[in-house]
This record gives sequence, C-alpha cells and structure tokens, in this order.
Amino acid sequence: MTVQNLTPQNLTEKVTNQDHYTPTPSLAALLDLTATDMGRINDLILQKAHSSVDMIPELATHLINSGGKRIRPMLTCATARLCNYEGLDHIPLATSIEFLHTATLLHDDVVDESDMRRGKKAARLLWGNQASVLVGDYLLGQSFKIMVSVGQLEPLKILSHASAVIAEGEVMQLVTAGNPQSSQDDYMAVVNAKTAALFVAASELGAVVANRPDQERQALKDFGHTLGILFQLIDDALDYHGDAKDLGKQVGDDFRDGKITLPVILAYQAGTDEEQKFWQRTLGQGDIQDNDLDTALQLISKYKTIESTMDQARDYGQKAKTALQIFPASDWKHALLDVVEFCIERAN
Amino acid sequence: MTVQNLTPQNLTEKVTNQDHYTPTPSLAALLDLTATDMGRINDLILQKAHSSVDMIPELATHLINSGGKRIRPMLTCATARLCNYEGLDHIPLATSIEFLHTATLLHDDVVDESDMRRGKKAARLLWGNQASVLVGDYLLGQSFKIMVSVGQLEPLKILSHASAVIAEGEVMQLVTAGNPQSSQDDYMAVVNAKTAALFVAASELGAVVANRPDQERQALKDFGHTLGILFQLIDDALDYHGDAKDLGKQVGDDFRDGKITLPVILAYQAGTDEEQKFWQRTLGQGDIQDNDLDTALQLISKYKTIESTMDQARDYGQKAKTALQIFPASDWKHALLDVVEFCIERAN
Repeated sequence: MTVQNLTPQNLTEKVTNQDHYTPTPSLAALLDLTATDMGRINDLILQKAHSSVDMIPELATHLINSGGKRIRPMLTCATARLCNYEGLDHIPLATSIEFLHTATLLHDDVVDESDMRRGKKAARLLWGNQASVLVGDYLLGQSFKIMVSVGQLEPLKILSHASAVIAEGEVMQLVTAGNPQSSQDDYMAVVNAKTAALFVAASELGAVVANRPDQERQALKDFGHTLGILFQLIDDALDYHGDAKDLGKQVGDDFRDGKITLPVILAYQAGTDEEQKFWQRTLGQGDIQDNDLDTALQLISKYKTIESTMDQARDYGQKAKTALQIFPASDWKHALLDVVEFCIERAN
Repeated sequence: MTVQNLTPQNLTEKVTNQDHYTPTPSLAALLDLTATDMGRINDLILQKAHSSVDMIPELATHLINSGGKRIRPMLTCATARLCNYEGLDHIPLATSIEFLHTATLLHDDVVDESDMRRGKKAARLLWGNQASVLVGDYLLGQSFKIMVSVGQLEPLKILSHASAVIAEGEVMQLVTAGNPQSSQDDYMAVVNAKTAALFVAASELGAVVANRPDQERQALKDFGHTLGILFQLIDDALDYHGDAKDLGKQVGDDFRDGKITLPVILAYQAGTDEEQKFWQRTLGQGDIQDNDLDTALQLISKYKTIESTMDQARDYGQKAKTALQIFPASDWKHALLDVVEFCIERAN
C-alpha cells in the first residue's frame, strides 16, 4: 500500500491494526474503567442536588436516579484518563456536565409535553411543568457553581459556551418543528447544537484538565463531535424503529411532537406529491389521525430512510474512531472505541 | 449626644448630617451618573442577545426593550464607581446580571401564566411557553458566557451562587403558593432568595471589581440585601394597591396566582375564622369568584396590612442607608441614597 492510497478508511484500518484491537459494541470496558470515578461523580451529584427546599432533591433525583447511562460524564472521565491525567478536577466538571444535561431534559420534557423519560413517568407529570422549569433552572445554577468551584477559566469557557449553544439548538428545533421541507443542513445544525455540543465539551475537558497540547484537544473535540452526531442519528432512527421498553419512551414520539428528523426529511424528499401532502398534514399542521403513525412507518420503510440514517451514523462512527488515532493504544482508548461501536449497534 | 445614644437611627442622622445630604425619592441622579455606562451596557445587551436563530433576538429584545428600569445593572455601575473603580469590567458583569434577570422573568411568566409584563403582552403569549422556556435558557447561557469572558473567578463565584439561590427561591415560592398560613419567615426566605440575592450580587460586584477591602464589600452586600427586600415588599404592596398602568401588570395578579405575600399573611393572621376560610378558599384552593378580589382588598384595608408592609419596607430602607455610612460623601453615594427613597416612594 502506497501513501497515496491512504484514504481515511485505510488509515484507520492501518492504525487499528497497529493496535491489534477490534472494538466490541459494549459499554462494559468503559463502565469498568470509570467505576471509581463514576462513584465519586454519583456522590457529588447527590450532594449537589440537595436543597432545603424538599421538592428540589425529590424531583432532581427522580430523573438522576432513573437509569440514564451517564455517557457524557463518563466521556470526561475517559478522555481525562486517556490523557494520563492523575488529578481529580474532572470529577466536578463531569458532574457539572450531567447537571447541565439533566436540566436540559427537564426543560425538554416541558417543551415537548413528554409523558415518559427513561421508562419512567416524566417529572412534569408528577410535579408539574412549573416545578420542572424551576428545578431545571436550579440545576443549571448548581451546574455553574460546581464548574466555578474548580477554579479554572478554560473549562468555564467551554461549558458556558456549550450551555448557550445547546439552548440555541433547542430553539432552532422548535422553529424547524412542523416543517418537513427542512433541509438536511437545517437538521444537522440542530443536532450539532442540541446534542453534539455537549459531547464536544465533555470530551475536550479531558484534554484541558490534563493540560495536553492543542492537537490532542482538537482530536478529542472531533471525537466528541462525531460521536454526538452518531448518537443523535441513532436516537432519531430508533424513534421510528425501536422497542418502547429499550427506548424508555414510545415509538413515534418525534412524529407526535412534529419533530423533523433525518428519517422524515429523507422520506419527504423521496416522496410522491401525495406522500409529501401526508407529511405536511401530519407534521406540518399537526393533524394526526389514528393510523397516521403506521403510514409514516410504511413510508419510512418504503424509502429505507432508517437504513440511510444508519449509514450516515456509521460514517460518523468511522470519523470518531479516526479522531482517536493520534493516541497510543491503551485500555482507555479501546474502551472509547467500544463506545462508538456500542452507539451504532444500539439500533440493531 | 453621647456615644451611648448612637442607636442605628441616630447614627444615620449623624452621618447624613455630616454629608449635608437629604435624599430625594428619584432615580434622576443615578440615571444621569450612569448614562455613559448604561449606554455601553445597552450596546452589549443587544449584541449578546443576537443569534442566527431569529426567534431568539426577537423574543429577547421584546422584553429587553420593554422599558424595565434596569436597576440591577445600574447598581453594579454605581457601586463600582462609588468604590472609585476606573476600569470597564463592571460593564459585562452588569450585562450578565440583566441577562440573568431577564431569563428569570421569561421563566416566571411561564410559571405564573402571566399575560402582561412591564405593560406589554408577555412574551409567552406572543411566542408561546415553549419559546419562552428555551430563550430563557439561552439568555442564562449567554449570561454565563459574558461573566466568564471577564476572566475573574470571584465575580463568577458570586453570580453562579446567585443564579442557584434565585432558582431555589422560585421553587420555594411555588411550594408555599396556596398556603395563606405561611409564616412571615417563609415569606422572607422566598424574598431573600428570589429577589434580594441578585441585588446583593449586583451591589457586591462593585466592590469586587474595584478590589476593595472586605468591610466595603460587606457594606455593599448589606445595602443590596436590604434594598432588595425593600424593593420586593413595595412590589407586593403595590399588587394590592397600585395603578395597573404604573405597575405594568394588573392589580391582584398575585391574588389570582395564589401567591402568598406579606399583605395577605398579615391579613390572614389578624383575620376572623370566616376571613381565614375566605383566604383558604381563594388562595388555598384557587376557587376565585368574581367579587373575591374586592373582598381581599377590603380585608387588606381593614387590617391595614399595606401600611404594615410599607412600615417594614421603610425599616429596610433605613438599614440600606445605614449600610452606606462607611463611604465618604460623593455624588454616587447620594444617588444610591436617592434610590432607596425612590423605591419606598413608588408606593405613594
């Protein structure tokens, strides 16, 4: 093989071969390696969700203890350790990321009028929309307090930027909701802001606390960015495809909320006039009848847009693995490669 | 007058006499002195409310340009200049405070289902509750980005703490809503957290950017704390007393929202069994009939609880003025003393 033949694909294979490592679609290695750190993070989460106002820890721990995978704080732990960091500053920073994410979920459920979250009743149904908005604000405030307590400006720049970008992405999603003519670019802009931004921050922080050079920092940003997009693409595919029990929500939630995701955009673009009218009526005007979800699933099946979405997800997975090439082989690197496979295989 | 006779009241008189200054109930001096700084803050507000997602600046500027008095950022300017600060770090910090406050207002209106804010239709009626929640989150994110951009940890500690405390106060208010048996202590805990905390932060920041000693910092915290309580007491009195046009909201809004404020707590405590049942039915169970606001106003008038609330407000005003005693006479000090008088006189 000559240097000219080193396409990104070949390059990855080459390095993977150097590592003698074939990723497993599993979180097991990451869970095992981060167990001590995640225990510390769990303790800090419970401590910082406390308040003398009882409703705050009640509502917050309902969501916090509801079995989310905590993939974002795990990323911060893993990237910090990948960078040979031996301190503990990543613990509060990862906690801060989980709080920011939890606050976003609380507000999301209010905005989407969701009934379920992670297989449990959404907090807003148990405590009301008002409490969900305000406890979300409290968790945002605590998130900022925790990151400030680390006493370093660089992580603060990263996280404050991420928090504004995430909210911007949520507004963008609200604005594009109900327009099945949205372009794939519009969709990617939402995914970048709403989901990938926090994966970027979570991964970049590992290099930052370890004080690593720009090249590694950029590599981890690229890793977080592509993993985040992959994660959201799979999530959006699963919404028309998955098992309600595994999802922790109901198939077709995005359809009912009028959310414009890639499987729909592709089906709309490929559709006949009549099919486009169907998408306009259901997602555009919110006029959804009993059998419309079935019709939507049939159209998505007809144009194989779940498969197309999965193909794009796999491409991002490849890019995520490529981003880790500059790091030497290690258990941490292999665990992160496993995470990429795991996220892809979720949909199968 | 011997030293033994120096009660706080006498002490204030003595120092005021030293200043040869009798406060005027007016914002004019403060508006005049801070005009240049507030111009800079206004520019920064508009710049930072920008986003490529059009809905964000549209919604944000609706509220930002709606004629709020911007008393919080003015406090930061005034306390910084009172402390002889000659730099410009207070500009982004004051902007950050106004963003934090604006985000709180957006979320408040969703939680309270308010129809009016500052004499205009509430943003939630024009853009919807969903947009108000998410744009509020965006403004919170921008608020943190702006304060991080100053590059100093101490202001970040103050502001991140304030943001968590404010949200905690909002949840506390939600929990006590509908319980007219709430104690005055419960009420003061809400006021401290929901309102006074941001006045404390806004005032303390002046001493912090100017790098002044702890004594001055504490004095400005005390000033902000007592002014904030005074401000809220007057606001709560006006809700049963003011002119809708001046208020920018409707008389009786707190009554309709089931909010338990001091005029109600005092009327409940003084009330007969039958009157207490009235408060339980209306504020407790939310069963409000056509003439109930009139009855509420009559009971509040019968027990002169507006007057009692005003008396307490005046006491806090006195404490606020006392807190400024350690500062030598200056235009800035006099303008701040005027603000105290202005806040008290709003109710007349």
